Formats: sequence, structure tokens, C-alpha cells
Amino acid sequence: MTVAGRPMIAPDRYRARLDRAARATADKGFDAVLVAVGPDLRYLTGYEAMPLERLTMLVLAPDPERIALVVPRLEEPAARVGCRPDVRIVTWEESDDPHGLVAGLISGRSVGGPQRLAVSDQLMAMHLLRLQRALPGATFESATLVLRELRMTKDPDEIALLRAAAHAADRVVGQIAAGRLVGRTEADVAREVRERLIAEGHDEAHFAIVGSGPNSASPHHEASDRVIEAGEPIVLDIGGTIGGYSSDTTRTLWVTGGDPAKGPTKEFRHLFGVLRAAQERATRAVRPGVACEAIDAAARDVIDAEGYGQAFFHRTGHGIGLEGHEEPYIIAGNREALAPGMAFSIEPGIYLGGRYGARIEDIVVCGPDGPDVLNESSRELYVVDG
Amino acid sequence: MTVAGRPMIAPDRYRARLDRAARATADKGFDAVLVAVGPDLRYLTGYEAMPLERLTMLVLAPDPERIALVVPRLEEPAARVGCRPDVRIVTWEESDDPHGLVAGLISGRSVGGPQRLAVSDQLMAMHLLRLQRALPGATFESATLVLRELRMTKDPDEIALLRAAAHAADRVVGQIAAGRLVGRTEADVAREVRERLIAEGHDEAHFAIVGSGPNSASPHHEASDRVIEAGEPIVLDIGGTIGGYSSDTTRTLWVTGGDPAKGPTKEFRHLFGVLRAAQERATRAVRPGVACEAIDAAARDVIDAEGYGQAFFHRTGHGIGLEGHEEPYIIAGNREALAPGMAFSIEPGIYLGGRYGARIEDIVVCGPDGPDVLNESSRELYVVDG
Repeated sequence: MTVAGRPMIAPDRYRARLDRAARATADKGFDAVLVAVGPDLRYLTGYEAMPLERLTMLVLAPDPERIALVVPRLEEPAARVGCRPDVRIVTWEESDDPHGLVAGLISGRSVGGPQRLAVSDQLMAMHLLRLQRALPGATFESATLVLRELRMTKDPDEIALLRAAAHAADRVVGQIAAGRLVGRTEADVAREVRERLIAEGHDEAHFAIVGSGPNSASPHHEASDRVIEAGEPIVLDIGGTIGGYSSDTTRTLWVTGGDPAKGPTKEFRHLFGVLRAAQERATRAVRPGVACEAIDAAARDVIDAEGYGQAFFHRTGHGIGLEGHEEPYIIAGNREALAPGMAFSIEPGIYLGGRYGARIEDIVVCGPDGPDVLNESSRELYVVDG
Repeated sequence: MTVAGRPMIAPDRYRARLDRAARATADKGFDAVLVAVGPDLRYLTGYEAMPLERLTMLVLAPDPERIALVVPRLEEPAARVGCRPDVRIVTWEESDDPHGLVAGLISGRSVGGPQRLAVSDQLMAMHLLRLQRALPGATFESATLVLRELRMTKDPDEIALLRAAAHAADRVVGQIAAGRLVGRTEADVAREVRERLIAEGHDEAHFAIVGSGPNSASPHHEASDRVIEAGEPIVLDIGGTIGGYSSDTTRTLWVTGGDPAKGPTKEFRHLFGVLRAAQERATRAVRPGVACEAIDAAARDVIDAEGYGQAFFHRTGHGIGLEGHEEPYIIAGNREALAPGMAFSIEPGIYLGGRYGARIEDIVVCGPDGPDVLNESSRELYVVDG
């Protein structure tokens, strides 16, 4: 649904998600899923609790009637507003033991045998260790086993938010490519990226990788105090969130400073051409039933065949949604079959250590017949005066 | 130390911190401390790794020679730049098992008996569960047992950063109190707070609680679409980070809209006077050797004596530093004795549910002879036209 021109998750979706998650808890044989503050809680209830040390936890039981949200008393009003479906709220006082409280809500539910519990991947170790002490007989596994199918398959509201975020990031790429770059530090450009992400409608700007010259060969380079020079590439990898959903796009620029003699080297043009072909081939391979590892291989085979295999040393992509990186991972060994609604990045890169590198990244949704590419900015090398 | 007028942690402090942490690991009887991305890693090495799903982990051994930083290969260049002390870096490839790698770095170190390991409170459950599987004989406890004394006691560089952040937040309080409030939504004021926190020098704006009218009675209220009216209070609780160190200050305003008939009620003035006395009494009680629970009691006794005990239902404060909330907690039952360099909030509140409430919060450092109050803005009720 859309409110004031901005996509949002329709409130009635949360009840359906909770019910499906409760069924999945039973189907997978868990006595409860302990949902931590973060993307799992937001997905199931809409509640964005503050990620602080006081325990907030949704106890997801196979019986929907027994679902409870445990919150510190001073956050009870916020939880009542933030939690969209009607869920029982259990509060604890400052001097209570919230982990014992959660344990009490679970025990008695299982009849004989050790309890089998799942916990959110994002749960802090301090809480998991205390829950393990409070429930000494229980086994703990990842809540991903229960929630992955739900969270991986995006509904139309989620796709609309991902698309809005992608388009906003595309506009920022265009603005940065059209502006001054030579003589500025990477950090200064990164600051501008963050400001522009907000100005274009992001709620938060999460990262702005600005890797110039040799730094373009470091995939997770942090923007540094290095001054950008004419005659070198810049890998620009930027993202933030709109309504909780992430943008994440990478484009590669080459700044000439207006000097025709400082254009891309022949080698770089070749490298980029290989990369462009690899990214396109992987994107075209997207359709329901294709394994994630096949998408990775589609990009990697092109790069390998041109002798750059050693220079592409990361996976081809990652799922995206309420987390910047989530399932499905587009990586060798992942036999998960793509299904309509799965959203992920396709972002091969070629990095010649100490010299330079390039990456192209789009967010792609698996449609019923093929790829739905959310980003719309040009994937070519941006040769700019800068 | 200060660079370009801005405080920063002197680089040579990190080596000393690592050495002290290694000694503490041995002294407390641990075979290793597994330090996760987040405040522990930043404290010990200066490295601000991206908080993503790929495992980055400092394996802190009692023998400083055996300390190793495990990082994904694509983040190796960033780790080499970000990690200030000279530490062995061990990289893993996309298809490796990083948890098995960490287990291998630990095992063989302990001779007989189960290994006793400590993990950062912030470690994600997905990593802890995998480490527990990779090290089935080991016991896992909180790294706080090893690192708390180090992190709780701030050095002069840390105090300078906390002070810079406090002063920046103070300026924002003054700007908001001097501006227009009536007729605006809480969310709109919160947006202004975040922008001003950045404009005043914060690297990140983390929160802006704007609780108007009845919302002022909800201590962790999220700024909502409620429109601020004349004749009601606003609890303003704001903070962000400078160089990783947090600001966190609360002031209570009363907006009259310029109408003398809409000033604070007699009851509210009384309530605020009690709160002001409680906050001042707790602050004055700060000195080395005094227990944290005694600071809590100093505030609570004043409020209890006036009959508002039930209306003050949260602890008096929390430690602050690289985390917004950290040890020591100023709470009943915490017998920890204050020591010079400890930094924490003193923030009693009185909340009359459904009607209104108030809170006053300063960041205080325990000095050698008494409190060093970092915030400098007025603690009185801000009666403003708004």
C-alpha cells in the first residue's frame, strides 16, 4: 500500500505473518522461536524497538494464542503503539529477571524431552547465554530455520519499498557522477553521498564506499582521507533504508579531470567490459527454479574465462530486505532454488590489488518469468570530467 | 589528544589496552576472549568493522603473541588500516568455515580440561551458536567479566570525547528550546534534533525522544505524529556520537504558546521541583568508593519521600562510552563502587501515566573528589513560548 505517495507495509500483513510463523514453528518441530529486537521482530510485528541492553523478546509459540511480547515496563507504551498485531504484552520491572521470565513462558509448554528452541540470528550473546542458563535442558538453533521462507519471499509492499530505495540511490549516483570529484577526499564525497541519500528520501544512510585509485581494489574499503586524482577509477557503493528496506548499488566511475589524456587505460576498459558482461549474464540467468549457485557461476564463468578468476574473490550477491545482507546468498554451494519474490544483489567485481578495481551492483527481484531489476541507472563505466 | 581541535584517542593507547586485556584474560582464568565487531573491538583495536554477517573476530589470548584478528578476505585491507596495534591478521575466503577457523586458533592452547571462553555481549547469536558447535567441550561466558574494568574506567581522551559530545547536545537543547514547537509534530521536531546533532559536530544522531503532553509520561516514547499543543510539557531526550562516544541528555520543556494562562500547572511545578532536587542530590553523591546503588537511592529517596515513588519506575542511570548504555548501571542492587573515570547518566524521572511526566539527565564522570558534570545546559524547567 501507499500513503502520501510513499510505499508502506499494509498493517494487516503483520497478523498474517505471525500466523504463518506460528505454523512454521510447529511444522519445523520447535517448541518456541525467541524473536529478538531487529529485523525478525520488525518483520513479524512492525515494532522497531530500541536495540538496547534491556531484553525485548517476542516468544513465538506454535499456538498463536500463546504468543507473547516481553518488554521492559518503561517501553510498554512504545511497544503497544509499535506492535501492529494484537499480541499479549508481558512487562518486566527494572529489578526483575527477564530471561527467567521468558523461560517461564516457554516451560510447561513442552511435554517431556528437551525443549527445542530457535533464536533470532541478531540476538545478542549476552541474552543467549542468559537464556541458555535459564533453560539448561533446551537446545538452541537459528530462527532462520523457521523464518527464512517467510522473510526471503518479499510481498508487493516490500518490493515497492525496495524499488523506492533503489531509485533514490540511483538518483544519488547520477548526482555524484555529475559533480566535482577531483581534488576532494573520499571521505568528503562519502559525506555528500550520505546527505544526498537522505535528501532523496532515505530514512537512514547506512554506507558510502568511495574507493578511488588503488582503493578501488579493496571491495569493502572505507572512505578515507585520500584525495581523488584525475586519471583513476572510483568504485561507489552506497545504500540506506526507506521504511526499513535497503538500497545497495554500486557503479564504477573514471575521472579524467577534463584531460583527454587521462581517460581509462585500455586494460581497465577491457576489465570493465568483462565485468559488465558477467553482471549482465548473471542477471539474465535469474528465474524461478534456478539455484543461487548457478547465478554465482554465471558471473564467475565469464570472469574466469578471461583470466580474472583470482581477482573476483567474493560471492556474487546477497539477499536484501529488512537487512542489508540476508538470505538468499548468491554463492557457490548454495543450492537454494530462486522463487518469485526473492530479492538479492548481483555484484561481481574484479580487483587488481594495489592497482585498481571495478564492481557493478544491482538489486534484482526474481519475477515469475525472469529478473525484475530494481536499479535503473546506467551500468556502463561512467567516464566523467569530475 | 586533539587533532584539528577535535579530541581523539591517541593511537598508542590501543597497544596498552590490548596488553592489559591479555593480562586480564589470564588473570580471570580464561583460555581466550572472542571479541566481536562492535564496541569491544573498537575499544581494543580502533577497528570499526562493518557489522555484517561475515565473521570478523579478535581472538584475545593470554599470551599477547598469540592474539589474532580473523577477517573475511575482502575486508583485509580495511582491517589493516583500521586495526591500530600490530596484530596478526588471519583471513578467510568466502567458502571457508570462519567459526572452525576461530576454533582452530583456540584449541591446542589449553592443556586438558574444558576450555573456558568469553565472548563479547554484542556477538550475534548466529555466530555464538556456530562457535558452540565448533567447540563442543568449551564453556562460554560474557567478555564483560574480562573487559569491564578496562572499559568502565575512561581515560582522558575518552572523557574529552564524551565532553565534546555532551556540549554539542547541550547546544541542540538550547536551539530547540528557542525555536518553534507548538503546532509541529513530535516527529518533525525529532528530525530537527537529528539534523542539529550532526550540524553541531556529531558523526551520527542516534535518538531523539520528543514526548509531548501525555507522551511525556512514556520514558522511551518514540517521536510520533502527535501535534504539540500550548500548555503542555515536552520531554526531550537526545543523543548521538562523536568519535564513537555518546551524548545523552534530557531536559523538560513546557510550551505556553505565548499565552500566560497556559503556563505549568502548580502540580507540574511541584513535581518538577522534586525531580530537580532528586537529580541534584544523586549528582552530589558521586565520589570514588560510593556504590552505584547508593546513587540510585539518593535520587529515589527524594522522590519516594514526596509520594512519587511509583511514578519513578526505571533505574537512575547507565554507564556511557562507546555504547549508549554500558556498565556501570546506576540501579538498586548494584554494589559496584564508583572509581575515578567512570562515566554514567543520572536521569531520574517522574511519570503520571496518561497525564504527563518529566525527566532530567546529565552525563557525569566520577572525578577524584566528586562529580564532573559534562552537560552544561540549565537543568531548570524550560518554560518557553514555543
